[in-house]
Formats: sequence, C-alpha cells, structure tokens
Amino acid sequence: MSQPRYDVLAIGNAIVDVMSPCEDELIEELGLARGGMMLVDTERAHELYDAMGPAREISGGSAANTLAGLSALGLQCAFIGQVADDQLGEVFAHDIHAVGIDFDTPARPGPPSTARCLIFVTPDGQRTMNTYLGASQFLPAQALDEQLIASAAVLYLEGYLWDPEEPRAAMRKAIAAARAAGRKVAFTLSDAFVIERHGDDFRALIEAGQIDILFANKVELAALTGKPDFDAGLAALAPKVPVLVVTRSEDGAVAIAHGERHEVAAETVSHVVDTTGAGDLFAAGFLAGYARKASIHRCLAMGAVAAAEIISHYGARPEADLKALIAEKLG
Amino acid sequence: MSQPRYDVLAIGNAIVDVMSPCEDELIEELGLARGGMMLVDTERAHELYDAMGPAREISGGSAANTLAGLSALGLQCAFIGQVADDQLGEVFAHDIHAVGIDFDTPARPGPPSTARCLIFVTPDGQRTMNTYLGASQFLPAQALDEQLIASAAVLYLEGYLWDPEEPRAAMRKAIAAARAAGRKVAFTLSDAFVIERHGDDFRALIEAGQIDILFANKVELAALTGKPDFDAGLAALAPKVPVLVVTRSEDGAVAIAHGERHEVAAETVSHVVDTTGAGDLFAAGFLAGYARKASIHRCLAMGAVAAAEIISHYGARPEADLKALIAEKLG
Repeated sequence: MSQPRYDVLAIGNAIVDVMSPCEDELIEELGLARGGMMLVDTERAHELYDAMGPAREISGGSAANTLAGLSALGLQCAFIGQVADDQLGEVFAHDIHAVGIDFDTPARPGPPSTARCLIFVTPDGQRTMNTYLGASQFLPAQALDEQLIASAAVLYLEGYLWDPEEPRAAMRKAIAAARAAGRKVAFTLSDAFVIERHGDDFRALIEAGQIDILFANKVELAALTGKPDFDAGLAALAPKVPVLVVTRSEDGAVAIAHGERHEVAAETVSHVVDTTGAGDLFAAGFLAGYARKASIHRCLAMGAVAAAEIISHYGARPEADLKALIAEKLG
Repeated sequence: MSQPRYDVLAIGNAIVDVMSPCEDELIEELGLARGGMMLVDTERAHELYDAMGPAREISGGSAANTLAGLSALGLQCAFIGQVADDQLGEVFAHDIHAVGIDFDTPARPGPPSTARCLIFVTPDGQRTMNTYLGASQFLPAQALDEQLIASAAVLYLEGYLWDPEEPRAAMRKAIAAARAAGRKVAFTLSDAFVIERHGDDFRALIEAGQIDILFANKVELAALTGKPDFDAGLAALAPKVPVLVVTRSEDGAVAIAHGERHEVAAETVSHVVDTTGAGDLFAAGFLAGYARKASIHRCLAMGAVAAAEIISHYGARPEADLKALIAEKLG
C-alpha cells in the first residue's frame, strides 16, 4: 500500500447555502421541518425563496464543509461533487479552491443549476434547511477516479448523497475502490429523514463491515437503530463499526472506538448564532485528530472546538483560525 | 404637485458584493488602492477573485444599500438599476424585494453578467473594493420612467454611476425629470477617484443648482473642492447646496443646512468588522430623518446610528432592526 497523497477525499453534494435569519412563525407558516433538511423541487424552491428575507450566499454542502475544516487544520484534502456550469457553480469552486482543497469534477452544462440550500435561521440559532439538489444529483459514477480514491487515507461520504440515484451508485463504487486499496471509509448519517428513506441501505453497509468510522447525532442514532434510548442505541450500533462518533448538541459527544467509550463535553459558546455546519465541523475536528493518530479523547475535543467555532457565526465554513483555536483551547 | 407615492427613488449600480477577509499584505501584493474603489475588467476581476480567500456573496451597490436602510426605517422606496438575466441578478432582485423595495428594471440578457464588487476586508475592518460593472453599466435612459421619478419625494443618485456612459445619460435625464416635477435631488459623491474622473460634471451640476442634498466624506469634499483643509472645503461648498452632509469616519459628521452648521459625534462601535456601506447607511439614516422632517441634528444622529450598525458586521445591508436601534439610542 503506497503512501497516501491525501489525508481525506470526500464525496458530497456541491451546494451553495442561501441563508437568512427569520422569526419562528415563518417556519410554521411555510410548513417547514424545523431543524431538519427537506429536499425541494424547483417550484417549492422558488416559493420558499420568495418568502425568505434578504439572504447571503455562502458555500456549503455537508462533506465540503467538513473538508474546509480539515484543510484549515492542515490536512491534504480533495473533493468530488457536481456543480453546474453557472455562477453559483463558480462560487462553490472558488470557495473550495480558496481553502486549498483539490476539486476538479468538471462542471455540468445546465440545466439544472448548481444546488442551493435555502436555510432559515431562527433566533435560537437553529437552522432549517431546504435543499434544491439541481446539478448535484447528477454526479456520475464515471466522475470517480479510482486512483484518486486509492490515493486518500480516508474516504469520507455524506448520507445526504444517498438520496439521488446517480451519486448513490457512485458512492457504492467509491466505497469498493477505497476498500480494495486498503483505505478507511468514514460515513456521516446526515439527517434522520435521510435515514427514513435509506436506512436499510445504511444498515446493510454497516452490517457488511464497509464503514470504518461512522458519524451520527443522537436523533440519527435513534432513527438508524430504532432505539429511542441513547445508550441502547449506542450498545446496538457500536459493535458493528470500529469507530462510532455520536454528537448530542449542547450535551457534547461520545465515541466508542474498538469497544472503549470516550466522552467530551460541548465547548461553551456565548451566543449561538447559526447551528448550520455544527455536525460537519465536529466531524472535521475529529477526523483531523484521527488522521494524526491523536487519542480518541483528543479527537473528540478537537471536534467540540471546531463545532463551537462554526455555530458562533453565520455559515458552515470556518472563519476563525481553527488551528490556533485548538492550540489555545487544547494545547 | 401631487402627493408623492415614494419617499425615495434611487438610481444606482445593481451589484452583488463578493466579500472576503484578508491580511494587509495581500492588498499590497495585488496593488490595490486600500480603502478605495477601483473599476476592474473581466480579466482583472478573475485575477483578483483567484487571489481571494473563501468569500460570501451579499447584495450591495451604494444607493441600493441606502435604500435598504431607508426601507428598514419604514420609508417607501423604489430602485432603478441594471442586472443581467443570471443567478447573481436573481440574488440582487430577491434581496432588494425582500426588504420591501419596488424594483422592476427588466434584467438584461447577458453577457455581460451582473455586476460584482470584489471586496477585500483587512483586519482593521477597512474595505478595498474592486468593481466589475458588467450589466450595470448598460442601464439605458429608456429604463427611467419619468412618472416614477415624479412620484418620489426625493431622487437619490450615486456618483459611482457617473462612470459608465449610458447610466450617466440616464441620470441626467432623471435629474431633469425630478426637478420638473418639483422633487428634491440628493446626490452622493461616492469616491475620491470617481471625482478625479468626473469632478467637472459634479461641480457643474452643483453650480447649476441641480442638487438639493449632497453627501460626501471628508476625502471626497477635499477632492471636489480642491481644498485639503476640512473647514475651507466646507466653506467653499456649503453655499452652493441647500443641504451638505459630510461624514468623517470616527470623527462623526457635519451638516450645513441653509447656512447653519450642525455636528454629530460618531456612535461608538466596540469592534469594527467591516466598513463597507458606512457612508451608504449614514445617508439612509440622514435621509430617513429628512423625509420625516426631523431636525438636522436628529437626521445626523440617525445617520450615525445606522452607520454604526453596518460596520459592526460583514456586508452593507442592515442586519439589526434599525428602527428599534434608533428608538433605543435616540428616543
């Protein structure tokens, strides 16, 4: 097995977030699933955009956000995802290149346009996401360069990408390529609604020993295992993956690695502005530690610091110097 | 003279800001005019964008920012400006509609694309702007609806729009229409470099009594009058306009209205994040007071509060509730 060129290669939806603060009432009026992610079609996307206040556009996408964190922490990263050949596609590509991530999946001639996630942020900082997948759902299996996959120590995949058919096939191919090359496969469950739709696939992958590191939050853990009790869910899932990492918002996070349980408290945040990207950046902090062979406890602590940074401002890409922040908080 | 339908109608560049924090060194490396605004062509825009870190897109444009402030303060506003028929054009239109401003200048089939302003924000919060005018420079004189202009109590124009030829002609037409309808004309000088290019035009307009309310900062005052001394500049310009408003950053602002001088201190801001839009929002606060027939002192104080809000966060459109903020600070 040759020395990997990349620490982490991620495959994910290539999305630009369209973010706007809103009052709680609007979430109800629009019939949105508060705190969750819903897929929307063109018509619904227009309807929601029309109802949205003034917004700002910031590159997003779950796995891409995680990579941005990893890159900020000094890891070598590459991204595979599908944008359209349009202005938002250029924005996405610019922002990911600007943080030093290799990304050269060719833009797809439109329509549809580059994916957008319409994010309503309520005064408590909670985000409610409505994703128009656009070009992102057409990531073809051919876009996956098996040599590229083999050249990364960790392949990181987001559950969100399981929704559209073409990327789902592409991811299965990617997992096979990574395993054949003896690389690790990390997977984030992304969202409870995604698990409702694709839980059987996820459970089959896990049972088959295809996943080395699994990220979930407590709601996703319950959805996947069918066990509402947190510890029961952990007990059911942990034996099936070498490393299981479960976040639980302000209650910190738990990892069970090779049978041993570790916990970390959440970092205190004086004012939660926008929770978008909290899970993505927790994964970034954890994986950065993992790639550097830090103790599981330190991996968790790094995740907590990165997540605290992201929820203290708008947008799901880090703004502060994460490296300095971790050095300051954790030494 | 019929009752005006709008408090303020503005004509300005329709621009989406592309904003990114940067270190001071980058400003030098790129040969940028720190704190100023430079016009850039497609090639230079690409070069600068490539050198820029991860960015966020927020609707901007000087006069449009002022209107966003006026609308937040409860005034009825309309905007005329040229976007292209592209994604950034949709973003601009969405954001201006979302704050309740009427805007229906038809999008122009591209190319060129909607105007972008690449804004580098240094750690002191200073912004250095590089504007690719794109579609904005093709605002045709026909886009001006003379009835619309006649229906607004104040016509507000930005000096920036004097650079491209077509909008310059359109603005002359607009001034004539507003004056013919007995409306007030407000003008902001925008930038010292714009005055270098078009100072003769601006001076001629002022000498001809075409401008009722003139906004400038201290650098622009010096550039327009040729007098580096602040008071000498004021003394030279004030007799030529009924209301002259000059901002001077942390030293507050001065207005000379019908021969009487008024001053206001700057509002204290605990941390200046990004000065983009400070002048635009000062003008918004001032004009909002003016439209409601507040005292000149209160107009200045409202300008100071609105400017302080805008420099405390990224972007040139208000985020806090300006009305509440003014009530809280000024009663």
